[in-house]
Amino acid sequence: MTEADFLAALRALPLHPGAQGLADDVARLGGYVLTTDTLVEGVHFLSTDPAQDVAWKLLAVNLSDLAAKGAEPVGVLLNYPLGEDAWDRAFLAGFDAALRQLGCQLLGGDTVSLPPGTPRVLTLTAIGHATHAPSRSGARAGDGLFVTGTIGDSGAGLAIAQGEPGLDALLNAYRRPLPRLGEGRILAAHVHAMMDVSDGLLIDAARMAAASGLAVTIDLAAIPLSDAYRAHIGDDRAARLRAATAGDDYQLLFAAPASLAVPARRIGHFAEGQGLTLTDGADPVALPARLGFEHGGA
Amino acid sequence: MTEADFLAALRALPLHPGAQGLADDVARLGGYVLTTDTLVEGVHFLSTDPAQDVAWKLLAVNLSDLAAKGAEPVGVLLNYPLGEDAWDRAFLAGFDAALRQLGCQLLGGDTVSLPPGTPRVLTLTAIGHATHAPSRSGARAGDGLFVTGTIGDSGAGLAIAQGEPGLDALLNAYRRPLPRLGEGRILAAHVHAMMDVSDGLLIDAARMAAASGLAVTIDLAAIPLSDAYRAHIGDDRAARLRAATAGDDYQLLFAAPASLAVPARRIGHFAEGQGLTLTDGADPVALPARLGFEHGGA
Repeated sequence: MTEADFLAALRALPLHPGAQGLADDVARLGGYVLTTDTLVEGVHFLSTDPAQDVAWKLLAVNLSDLAAKGAEPVGVLLNYPLGEDAWDRAFLAGFDAALRQLGCQLLGGDTVSLPPGTPRVLTLTAIGHATHAPSRSGARAGDGLFVTGTIGDSGAGLAIAQGEPGLDALLNAYRRPLPRLGEGRILAAHVHAMMDVSDGLLIDAARMAAASGLAVTIDLAAIPLSDAYRAHIGDDRAARLRAATAGDDYQLLFAAPASLAVPARRIGHFAEGQGLTLTDGADPVALPARLGFEHGGA
Repeated sequence: MTEADFLAALRALPLHPGAQGLADDVARLGGYVLTTDTLVEGVHFLSTDPAQDVAWKLLAVNLSDLAAKGAEPVGVLLNYPLGEDAWDRAFLAGFDAALRQLGCQLLGGDTVSLPPGTPRVLTLTAIGHATHAPSRSGARAGDGLFVTGTIGDSGAGLAIAQGEPGLDALLNAYRRPLPRLGEGRILAAHVHAMMDVSDGLLIDAARMAAASGLAVTIDLAAIPLSDAYRAHIGDDRAARLRAATAGDDYQLLFAAPASLAVPARRIGHFAEGQGLTLTDGADPVALPARLGFEHGGA
């Protein structure tokens, strides 16, 4: 089954009201926000990625979902497949450092053994506390579409991890993404809708628009690129399309009044209607065949 | 790394107070109880087990941890690997039925793709609500050790699922264990310690004794066996040892005043000291080399 078919089938199951129709990256329970993400070796990370970095990423991608709801991390549950000694020890060291650096604590979990030769499958569930938790469906016609930080670095870093020569800054963006917890907490009270960019800027923006029942237009020329990205990949339309569809950025994407003064880049706007439209400055741009990664987190 | 080494290393990480030193099957957060279990194809279930039954078991083993804390299920998060269409659809049908029958709702989750040929790895996280949540470490010297239901049926059912001829009642105990939610809620206010029997009666009782800083003695002759188990496996010492080490029973194991009148069997007692001692009526019995399943849920 495709992810979309599976999600549609899940919506027919007995749903908790806090599931919000499975339309968001998180569930709500009292003042808590819950999210879970599974990382698979060979799919979400490379066998050659250092175990410390896999631990960082596993925590960071979950905390990024909390950041998008303005939530403060409370604790995490870890489902871990025991394997090679050296890898397990390096993972633990990386997980320890990540918990301390990102300000989170371990609540519990489960350890299993996998049959020999099985790719590692790691799951983390993160629980946060939020007072205002913006949904992804609250964008209003006339709102601006904003994004924090820069886009595309992680995608370029993946190519470097796969052997392409390149810059450490990009490799680091791929292996050690930073969840935008501080920005998320500040933004939560001011935005109409917010989510993190995990599967690709275009596909995630299209999802926010669809959830909000609106059309969205994105200006490729406005997408913030890092100096490292410009130096390594470039700054032309192809480079910008690559950045906008690469995913793994873990920046915050939000809808807010176009005039909102925030440390984020306005890259588009919402209007009545539906669908995603691309421009490059004043020029219309055809949508690429692939808007992002299709089997990402739900 | 072994599970014990890994757990010891986890205890050196930043722990949430609700983790209770990772000494229990659940974490606590406000009035909530959280637990998570991963099932692996070829380890925790057979490739030939029907997908509907895998769905049932995934929910049931997690709710069993809630039952042992006297908790009422609130909701679950599902981490699911998309695969063959027919299996996915059968899983969804089984999961739907299990949620409805066991009185629980879906809160959210994540779907992933696994590389071709990878065994299925499924994770569920369950959240419950509890007023009195007995730990596994509260047994007192002089307490009786009690167990609900019958022991060994699921282990015998596994052999049947693997091709041995046998009785449907045993196969059903393996494929469709029933979490003891009702008993758990009633018992929670009256017991000193409680946990579910997932890895084997002997190993789980030894864990309760160790967590409580006590010795425990179990009388094999007192272990409750079903008629189906007696008919299929027998009732001698070997049959009783097999039942007590098989695991997957999902009955409740608890410490309470020896005189407590409850619909459960008293099978042993706690005393000052440490370690597990076995008897068969008045005869001492040497401990078997293997007390249960060592890579079970944490």
